[in-house]
Amino acid sequence: MDATIVGADSRLTEAPGTLALGDLPPAVDAPPPLELDATGRLPAMRLLGQVHGTYLLAESADGLIVIDQHAAHERVLYERLLRTRGRGAADGQLQVTPTPLPLPSDAFALLTMHQALLMQLGFDLEPFGDRTVLIRSVPRIAAQASPQRLLVDLIAELAEGPRAVAAQTLLERLTITTACRTAIKAGDVLDRDQMAALVRDLARADDPFTCFHGRPTLITLPLAQLERWFLRR
Amino acid sequence: MDATIVGADSRLTEAPGTLALGDLPPAVDAPPPLELDATGRLPAMRLLGQVHGTYLLAESADGLIVIDQHAAHERVLYERLLRTRGRGAADGQLQVTPTPLPLPSDAFALLTMHQALLMQLGFDLEPFGDRTVLIRSVPRIAAQASPQRLLVDLIAELAEGPRAVAAQTLLERLTITTACRTAIKAGDVLDRDQMAALVRDLARADDPFTCFHGRPTLITLPLAQLERWFLRR
Repeated sequence: MDATIVGADSRLTEAPGTLALGDLPPAVDAPPPLELDATGRLPAMRLLGQVHGTYLLAESADGLIVIDQHAAHERVLYERLLRTRGRGAADGQLQVTPTPLPLPSDAFALLTMHQALLMQLGFDLEPFGDRTVLIRSVPRIAAQASPQRLLVDLIAELAEGPRAVAAQTLLERLTITTACRTAIKAGDVLDRDQMAALVRDLARADDPFTCFHGRPTLITLPLAQLERWFLRR
Repeated sequence: MDATIVGADSRLTEAPGTLALGDLPPAVDAPPPLELDATGRLPAMRLLGQVHGTYLLAESADGLIVIDQHAAHERVLYERLLRTRGRGAADGQLQVTPTPLPLPSDAFALLTMHQALLMQLGFDLEPFGDRTVLIRSVPRIAAQASPQRLLVDLIAELAEGPRAVAAQTLLERLTITTACRTAIKAGDVLDRDQMAALVRDLARADDPFTCFHGRPTLITLPLAQLERWFLRR
């Protein structure tokens, strides 16, 4: 007679086996651990995977590292944009076919008024008629993004005008919005290469530990914390 | 010019690439996610891996599950031993060759005095001369363990005699010691099949949430907790 199965799921048909170490062959589908060397300011870590399409998990010598993929990518893109800012549209990603963006007249006026500012980020926008802009280039970091949606977000930022409370310049706010809207989102499923690329890029950031909104990009659960949870100490 | 690399590790030679979703092919070494259906009292989960050879990590619909592999295995083995207890050596794992265990005379006396009690757990011990026992069978759960080391631990338990404070019978304490000493330890590296077997066995336990020492076998980090850590809410 075997174990009394309490509330067993009928979908599971195999008998409960005794777990015996060394009794089983190595699992054939076990992935080679994705080891990331220590680079920049992050420790060496072993990537374990993604939780809820939002957080990356990795083991480090100190414990468990949890990375917020959106905050991390924001930080990476923001710093990349800072480094290219001022080089203008020359550093932008030229659109193979310029994308026309028809706009309400006030939005059109805002964009054309701030054309020079946006050019510092890599946007090349050309008025086409009196209500449409042609998007000739976008910042290189936004090459994969929808240029129309990005511009709509930037117009919203421009429409707010100068903020009394925030010391940020309009250029800074446009930089932040561009990075934020271009970054991967919570819910975007990443494969292992993408996870590894993100972690490596983050490690090389000047400030890898917070996004520009002040949120943490990563937290470390120290082993000692895990041990306390499990009353191991 | 590319990124200013701060404290970059010279071992890493590839240039920092821009992470672009959809730009990369699926990673070839990505493992098929190890999905475990909901069974018994545990929710469905996706095993992510092992941290520091001690904790298993899994994603569930509610968040992140962390399992203490030793506490979990203790619980599984303890309940298995409870179910076979009383059936005696008939349910034990017969040793192909009986293992002789030479002992100090007081330990020998203890073992032979409590021979009947130990037989309820599946031990078949036969006095051989006046200082040696032959181990003819051990509890089935201990088939992979060193019978000599297990017996030495049980002798220590027997030597303590009845405890004034603990309500546990001697049989209960021997059961606990057998399960504890047989269970996988912190630091034992498990492959994915072994992790999956442990989680499935735990899900079928009558009480999957604590080991008999009162320590938790698993904790769930709810998504809301992760969101608070990252100031997402």
